[in-house]
Amino acid sequence: MATHFFSKRNLQFLLYEVFNAESLTQYEYYQDHARETFDMVLDSAEQIAEKLLKPLLTEMDRKEPQLVNGKIRIHEGMFPILKKFGEDGWINAGFSYDEGGQQIPSTILNSAAFIFQAANYSSSVFPFLTSGAANLIRSFGSEELKNTFTPNMYAGVWQGTMALTEPDAGSSLSDISTTAEPTENEGIFKIKGQKIYISAGDHDGCENVIHLMLAKIKGGPAGAKGISLFVVPQKRIKETGDGRNEGTVEAERNSIQTSNLENNDVITAGVYHKMGYKGAPIAHLMVGSNDNTLGYLVGEPHKGLTYMFQMMNEARIGVGMNATAIGTAAYYASLEYAKERPQGRIISDKDVTKPQVQIIRHADVKRMLLFQKAVVEGSLSLLVQCSMYADLAHVTEGEERENYHLLLDLLTPIAKSYPSEMCCLTTSAAVQILGGAGYTTDFTVEQFYREARIHPIHEGTTAIHGLDLLGRKIIIKNGKSLQLLVAEILKTLEKANQFENLKPFSQKLQHYLGKTDSVTRHLLGLSSKDLEIFLSDATLYLELFGIMTIAWQWLVQGIKAEEALQTVTSGDDANFYQGKIFTLRYFYEYELVKIDALMKRLLSEDNVTVEMKAEWF
Amino acid sequence: MATHFFSKRNLQFLLYEVFNAESLTQYEYYQDHARETFDMVLDSAEQIAEKLLKPLLTEMDRKEPQLVNGKIRIHEGMFPILKKFGEDGWINAGFSYDEGGQQIPSTILNSAAFIFQAANYSSSVFPFLTSGAANLIRSFGSEELKNTFTPNMYAGVWQGTMALTEPDAGSSLSDISTTAEPTENEGIFKIKGQKIYISAGDHDGCENVIHLMLAKIKGGPAGAKGISLFVVPQKRIKETGDGRNEGTVEAERNSIQTSNLENNDVITAGVYHKMGYKGAPIAHLMVGSNDNTLGYLVGEPHKGLTYMFQMMNEARIGVGMNATAIGTAAYYASLEYAKERPQGRIISDKDVTKPQVQIIRHADVKRMLLFQKAVVEGSLSLLVQCSMYADLAHVTEGEERENYHLLLDLLTPIAKSYPSEMCCLTTSAAVQILGGAGYTTDFTVEQFYREARIHPIHEGTTAIHGLDLLGRKIIIKNGKSLQLLVAEILKTLEKANQFENLKPFSQKLQHYLGKTDSVTRHLLGLSSKDLEIFLSDATLYLELFGIMTIAWQWLVQGIKAEEALQTVTSGDDANFYQGKIFTLRYFYEYELVKIDALMKRLLSEDNVTVEMKAEWF
Repeated sequence: MATHFFSKRNLQFLLYEVFNAESLTQYEYYQDHARETFDMVLDSAEQIAEKLLKPLLTEMDRKEPQLVNGKIRIHEGMFPILKKFGEDGWINAGFSYDEGGQQIPSTILNSAAFIFQAANYSSSVFPFLTSGAANLIRSFGSEELKNTFTPNMYAGVWQGTMALTEPDAGSSLSDISTTAEPTENEGIFKIKGQKIYISAGDHDGCENVIHLMLAKIKGGPAGAKGISLFVVPQKRIKETGDGRNEGTVEAERNSIQTSNLENNDVITAGVYHKMGYKGAPIAHLMVGSNDNTLGYLVGEPHKGLTYMFQMMNEARIGVGMNATAIGTAAYYASLEYAKERPQGRIISDKDVTKPQVQIIRHADVKRMLLFQKAVVEGSLSLLVQCSMYADLAHVTEGEERENYHLLLDLLTPIAKSYPSEMCCLTTSAAVQILGGAGYTTDFTVEQFYREARIHPIHEGTTAIHGLDLLGRKIIIKNGKSLQLLVAEILKTLEKANQFENLKPFSQKLQHYLGKTDSVTRHLLGLSSKDLEIFLSDATLYLELFGIMTIAWQWLVQGIKAEEALQTVTSGDDANFYQGKIFTLRYFYEYELVKIDALMKRLLSEDNVTVEMKAEWF
Repeated sequence: MATHFFSKRNLQFLLYEVFNAESLTQYEYYQDHARETFDMVLDSAEQIAEKLLKPLLTEMDRKEPQLVNGKIRIHEGMFPILKKFGEDGWINAGFSYDEGGQQIPSTILNSAAFIFQAANYSSSVFPFLTSGAANLIRSFGSEELKNTFTPNMYAGVWQGTMALTEPDAGSSLSDISTTAEPTENEGIFKIKGQKIYISAGDHDGCENVIHLMLAKIKGGPAGAKGISLFVVPQKRIKETGDGRNEGTVEAERNSIQTSNLENNDVITAGVYHKMGYKGAPIAHLMVGSNDNTLGYLVGEPHKGLTYMFQMMNEARIGVGMNATAIGTAAYYASLEYAKERPQGRIISDKDVTKPQVQIIRHADVKRMLLFQKAVVEGSLSLLVQCSMYADLAHVTEGEERENYHLLLDLLTPIAKSYPSEMCCLTTSAAVQILGGAGYTTDFTVEQFYREARIHPIHEGTTAIHGLDLLGRKIIIKNGKSLQLLVAEILKTLEKANQFENLKPFSQKLQHYLGKTDSVTRHLLGLSSKDLEIFLSDATLYLELFGIMTIAWQWLVQGIKAEEALQTVTSGDDANFYQGKIFTLRYFYEYELVKIDALMKRLLSEDNVTVEMKAEWF
């Protein structure tokens, strides 16, 4: 197994040199922190990743979760990991002191998550899901719900999930058919339905599973406007004589015992076997089959989807991070191999009596390594940028806050989709570098290739994000989000122009920024004429926008590298910065130019995909 | 499991409408055949595929070959299949009557292989390998070798392999270290070494394994010029008193009994576990560990690589076909799903009280289906084209023959690599169309995705084919091959110009043909200046050339479709031809334009991949 699975140096570069994460500590909410606390968090993540997560990477892939007597059995190596995540406070580390959290910025926590994910993606999803579910309860739930459910979730003994998808409602969430019927107790409903693909939806590494479930209250509006959000525990707290849950009494929080729990009629009907990230149990759930599932309404009725989507940026940044982390692990695995493996000779000296050279000497291998480096480090840069926007939106106010929100909203479909799509290709490049060896289970790259493939699907497929970007994010507030982003990019161009070496890149990006603008105007021109045609190539627009965005992030990194190279001229640091400059060059030479082809298509009048008929296939 | 795994209609279109395979029967060698015999072969392949191969597709993936007591155990469902392939004469069907074959053209046999591969890739590789190995013996071996080894190979009871790769020699074959030491018997050598990744290198579904093995005769020249080809059987025929092998006596051919075989010291050290095509046993072999392996020289000493490469076109066309077949099966699986699965509503009518529509109504799903159709049918077209060139080279003479050989040689790296690279992406699109379902093992698309990934690696990685195309095929005979191809394309353009509807496509292809020419000239200009830089982006040149070639093949198909649409205006056939025209449109709108980006890079002066250093990663 490869020694390195991420670069601490690169993470520090992004956090402290490029994005100045320390600057967050000037805000009251983060004032107790300093670079030292941030580093402690990251060091601690690295230790857990190295000691607990990484050793299980292959094993969890080979020994998949199984459904045994109605319960999903996960790899037993996960038990101490789950315990550790809870004990060390990872699940609510980002929440406020009031809520028992540590007010760690998302920028730092997402970076820590990146380390976990790069070590062993399957094992990293458990706490991430619990955290997301708890976040929904703490943000929109009543005090009673918070007190009942979140303490054990924070402690890592109760698993949280997001229970959205149903057999007939995947991309089209408005079509969910799980129903909620009021009971005599206000806020308590009887839930009935089926949920599929529920990550960590059941497993034997926790005492209880708390589903944040979408359902429709009977008699409510059709479609998305009739969706409500419920806490549906796998086991509910036994009712006491007064008709209230025992656990709701403040004094009893944190002390809900397994003996106080009773079955809530959430049946695990199956566990999915998957191409990759096999270690994570994905459940098929039957809810209320015996008419005995209680769900606790979160917030107001019919606002479920709104609540869910307010948390969605976070989840989607999370998916982009997962993809980037897997891509990073594959990159380092193939880099290590390329540095060690002798094969062939350099093209200008084919003397067969001389020994073979390491394959990293071959231009095409370097191309495949630069491709991986460009995508994963470019993606990570964007994800740290987005995390900073999220943190800044959290601590600022008024227009400033709104602007950060708008930037984050606009960039979220890119931050989710670009890494997701591209890391399918970078992990493929990693396999290719290893050749035949890469196709065997003797090396980890084949696992990374399989694991990477989930990301263009979950938390909204790439097509959904294309529609989100072109059909919503570009348009809302009269295009203010896009104006804000363009302003940010122009600031970068201005800085880059101060360095002679960076001017060619800055000019190219300016050129493609203009091209992107023409394409956007052209498409928006179609929106009033034919909605179907307007959105038919939204996926390609997303791709184009993604390339442009990552090119921007490479220039942002290039500026810092060029600045550093003014004084650092030798040693590891100089090598690091040179690598950045070369990867910037690679990106502009090989990736940015792809916009030419996308543009030609996006400006074309041939509506072949719209006009194509099912019977012609 | 999906009902359809290939389109008979499309195969017939290519064979009889586009490439006129029947015209081969005007040559003496094929004169006994007619469309009826060709159809019989294909119908027979379809029946075997449907009844024997397809039902094992998933099972063979789940129950991998295992090494048990030094022998690889394959799925027992393969036994009757292997028997059937032998009994029905599939292994030597293409060989001459003299050799017990049926003189079936490659065009037809490759099409039959396509059907087998689309049904179950793993199961299709066994006879293909035996056929390739036997082909080497019959082409370059002595009568004695032919008589001893080929009859049982043709009968399907002895497995054939191509044993090239070694731990230190994969892409760099000149570095093989397996040795051959002469014995007192002429033509018989003692072989010693290790071979890895040997497909069907050992299994319990055959009586013997005949390795066509590369080794270096001690004292021979270094590098590729010192490589010889040997028949190295897993079990050799027992020696009789006169020092000659029993089996060499003409009268005994076909009657070599298992009891006459003795161990030849070829030890199966391991079986590889792989990401996909798990049903095929890939062996690690130890040869001559006990100094007791005999190998029989094929042809002359030191000509092994030359022999091997004369057979390589065939093997490489075979790999392109494998990739295309898997891509085709995935296309039909996702098409069937898209036609049945309701999800969401059309963009111009989002009324949530109406039922959901089948996803094939969504433009982005149609885009992903058109992408698959464009790649797999474009690739199949090229592969049939290449097969026709091979058959015509077989039956023509003089310059005509040479020209067909040159065309085939030039197109082989494309025919191998374009489908191999692209079907990784098309199977990914198939997964994407199924969404979450596509990532589970409940559907076949995830298996196709894993299986497709081997093709850019075996029979020469994509990089190797890039070097082959740009560094050899474009240059040899003063560029005659390329001139021949351009002449063929110009003929197509001329025909296309006779149809008003096709003129825009013909103009676009002419434009990109010109662009390809500029890129070629630019690169050749570099060859005298700096070999390293000249070849550094050979992989991108291969990609560009591939897109241009497939665009040509789509125009070739478009001409026939447009011709047919002059008279056929309704019914299934009209739908079929409309599908062709729309897929042509798709290819020119979405794929051909990718040349713009590739060109920009290939004409650039920034040698970033050459200049990048290992320590900067």
